[in-house]
Amino acid sequence: MPISGFPEWLPPQRMIEQYVLDKIRSTFELYGFAPLETRAVEPLETLLSKGETSKEVYLLRRLQDSGDTPAKGEDQLGLHFDLTVPFARFVVENHGRLQFPFRRYQIQKVWRGERPQEGRYREFLQADIDVVNRDTLPFHFDTEMPLVIGDVFRSLPMPRAVILVNNRKVCEGFYRGLGFEDTAQVLRTIDKLDKVGPDKVAALLVETAGATDAQAAACLRLAEISATDGSFVERVRALGVTDPLLDEGLGELLQVVETANEHAPGLVRAELKIARGLDYYTGTVYETQLEGYERFGSICSGGRYETLASVGNTRFPGVGISIGVSRMLGLLFGQDALSVSRPVPTCVVVALPSDDRRAECDRIAAALRKRGIPTEVAPTAAKFGKQIQFADRRGIPYVWFPGEPDTVKDIRSGEQVEADASAWAPPAADLHPVVTGR
Amino acid sequence: MPISGFPEWLPPQRMIEQYVLDKIRSTFELYGFAPLETRAVEPLETLLSKGETSKEVYLLRRLQDSGDTPAKGEDQLGLHFDLTVPFARFVVENHGRLQFPFRRYQIQKVWRGERPQEGRYREFLQADIDVVNRDTLPFHFDTEMPLVIGDVFRSLPMPRAVILVNNRKVCEGFYRGLGFEDTAQVLRTIDKLDKVGPDKVAALLVETAGATDAQAAACLRLAEISATDGSFVERVRALGVTDPLLDEGLGELLQVVETANEHAPGLVRAELKIARGLDYYTGTVYETQLEGYERFGSICSGGRYETLASVGNTRFPGVGISIGVSRMLGLLFGQDALSVSRPVPTCVVVALPSDDRRAECDRIAAALRKRGIPTEVAPTAAKFGKQIQFADRRGIPYVWFPGEPDTVKDIRSGEQVEADASAWAPPAADLHPVVTGR
Repeated sequence: MPISGFPEWLPPQRMIEQYVLDKIRSTFELYGFAPLETRAVEPLETLLSKGETSKEVYLLRRLQDSGDTPAKGEDQLGLHFDLTVPFARFVVENHGRLQFPFRRYQIQKVWRGERPQEGRYREFLQADIDVVNRDTLPFHFDTEMPLVIGDVFRSLPMPRAVILVNNRKVCEGFYRGLGFEDTAQVLRTIDKLDKVGPDKVAALLVETAGATDAQAAACLRLAEISATDGSFVERVRALGVTDPLLDEGLGELLQVVETANEHAPGLVRAELKIARGLDYYTGTVYETQLEGYERFGSICSGGRYETLASVGNTRFPGVGISIGVSRMLGLLFGQDALSVSRPVPTCVVVALPSDDRRAECDRIAAALRKRGIPTEVAPTAAKFGKQIQFADRRGIPYVWFPGEPDTVKDIRSGEQVEADASAWAPPAADLHPVVTGR
Repeated sequence: MPISGFPEWLPPQRMIEQYVLDKIRSTFELYGFAPLETRAVEPLETLLSKGETSKEVYLLRRLQDSGDTPAKGEDQLGLHFDLTVPFARFVVENHGRLQFPFRRYQIQKVWRGERPQEGRYREFLQADIDVVNRDTLPFHFDTEMPLVIGDVFRSLPMPRAVILVNNRKVCEGFYRGLGFEDTAQVLRTIDKLDKVGPDKVAALLVETAGATDAQAAACLRLAEISATDGSFVERVRALGVTDPLLDEGLGELLQVVETANEHAPGLVRAELKIARGLDYYTGTVYETQLEGYERFGSICSGGRYETLASVGNTRFPGVGISIGVSRMLGLLFGQDALSVSRPVPTCVVVALPSDDRRAECDRIAAALRKRGIPTEVAPTAAKFGKQIQFADRRGIPYVWFPGEPDTVKDIRSGEQVEADASAWAPPAADLHPVVTGR
């Protein structure tokens, strides 16, 4: 039986997923990110080290161990709930063996022990990139993340992606300039804007952050600012708040927007209400909307950490972004927005004239495979009509008939031509299944 | 800290692993196997349904649940310990939506809660293929498995693989023909041959299977037979035992050997002592040795199940084989038998003459990436010597110097030539990291 929160795709969806993963991976590699995979488990104390009790953790126990405690000398292990915590641990463990700045990508399943009723994924695939450096990490790496993600989405038959960008320094500096001391509390409240609306947020700012009505109104006006070009700077300035951190944040955010506009106009939008809630970002933050799917929220998020990891007095700052692959595909599959031309890799079925000719058919198949053409031999020496049906049901375009000479039939058009297994090739578009958007 | 049994590779090893996985996958697809991934967890009762208490299972528990029992209405979940049990469950669940015979491959992590002291993997990657059909599965699918595995290994820069094949029907028929009733007990004892030697096995056959000395000796003589061609049939016949099941088994085994010899001489060896212990195979069984690594045991095993799954009165027989990817790579890495030409995908570093020219360098990088050339821009506008060192330390072959005109330098040879980012390409051998064997 299906288990709530643990999605499983049938082969056609899995083929689409692999296609998407291949495109993600090759784009990441074009930007020089090296592959990494970490183990699925971490000691519980590592998983909870950032106070992440909000991410529900699955703990592991050996069936053979009695009770709930791990065997002597063993840590309590849990499944990782993201790829950032394991990556930070990996950097700490291997910093002496890595070249910094270290660019890595990581495409793996993660698990969250959500309550099943919520209908959320409990197992899902993420595709992360991060750049981490020793001591300091130049800001320009923050401007690179949207370019990579933009290229990923441009390589896929999907709706257009818009990356929403903000900078915690803008918010924090603005709130400080307004006179707030507990700027984190203000940020947490602003983060509720989409859920509860501006009136409620204003009330909450007064209630929980000690804001005056004017301060609350100013915070809301900042959060309203949104621009696909550098005009947001003027609009923030027009609110009349000054603070050095605000200036720094505006400068950084402007760089992200300008670099993205140079690369692909419309790719990013400065969106000053983006807060990324409880995550430990210290500067740039990213969220991503798919056009037409805005109501489903962000499918790709991340930001800058001043301290991704630390070893003694050495800090390792980082910036990264994570594509929620399962979440994104779940949305698109739900709308039938992606399809694949056939549910098997096979391009050619070699028809079997009679059981005693299987060796001959195997030789034909081997010759085709040798030149990269995915081929199956028919499972039984049924009537040719049935063998053609075998191919047709699977969307396999070609059936090969051994003979003197051999012939190959495009079963879509009915066209049948003489062919030699050591030379014939299908049109490039037929060689592999093709993934298309709606 | 590393956790015993949970291997983690540094990026160069991970690059090799990905290269190997890509080759495995593309070979599987050339034979028409469709991709499948199942969830990492199964209900405990599914995991134990074949009586597999010998495979140690990791159970899951939500951190937020008190005690050891799952929330009401939820099954006790455990991590899968192989890919066969989840595949069988998937077939049962989805048989109405699949086209039979159904060919699928599945490349995933599995987990076994072994005691840490044993130095065994507790998390490892397997790459499985299986063909499953409704009611009956023609025997020729058994002859196909070694061809696929042979092609996988021929595509990899690795020692030669030899697939050892046997057939349970040969053993069972032979033991029956000799007069044994509990043939399973004889098989289990013969399976200990490599561990305890023939004298001890003979004694055990007398002790636990009620064998006479002559019967025990005959069983051992059968187990000694080994041949890369059909000559094993004569040698079995020469032992003077007759039984219809023995005849059937010999005929099947001969087909596997002959088909493989036609495809790639030396690829398989009939090895009549192979028993595959406690697994539920009913006919053909496979093990695989890497030349030079025989002492480490099988790195790729499988066989035929008369009942892989069943739904009501409908049986789903299957045949499959599984490459132990982590185990195999662990062995090869341990002997430094595989290497990669550089630990990053990057082919070109664009040198940054000064910070104010980053946009220009980004444009050059974008032009190169657009044509599939993995490119990074130097992280800082350091002296060119330091920027060349940045590339050199990572094994990146080319450094690009923006100018009028641009030039590109092969830092291995020192050769520097004029180049245009919209036209230049490296030699094909430099474009991506190259994996080589020793």
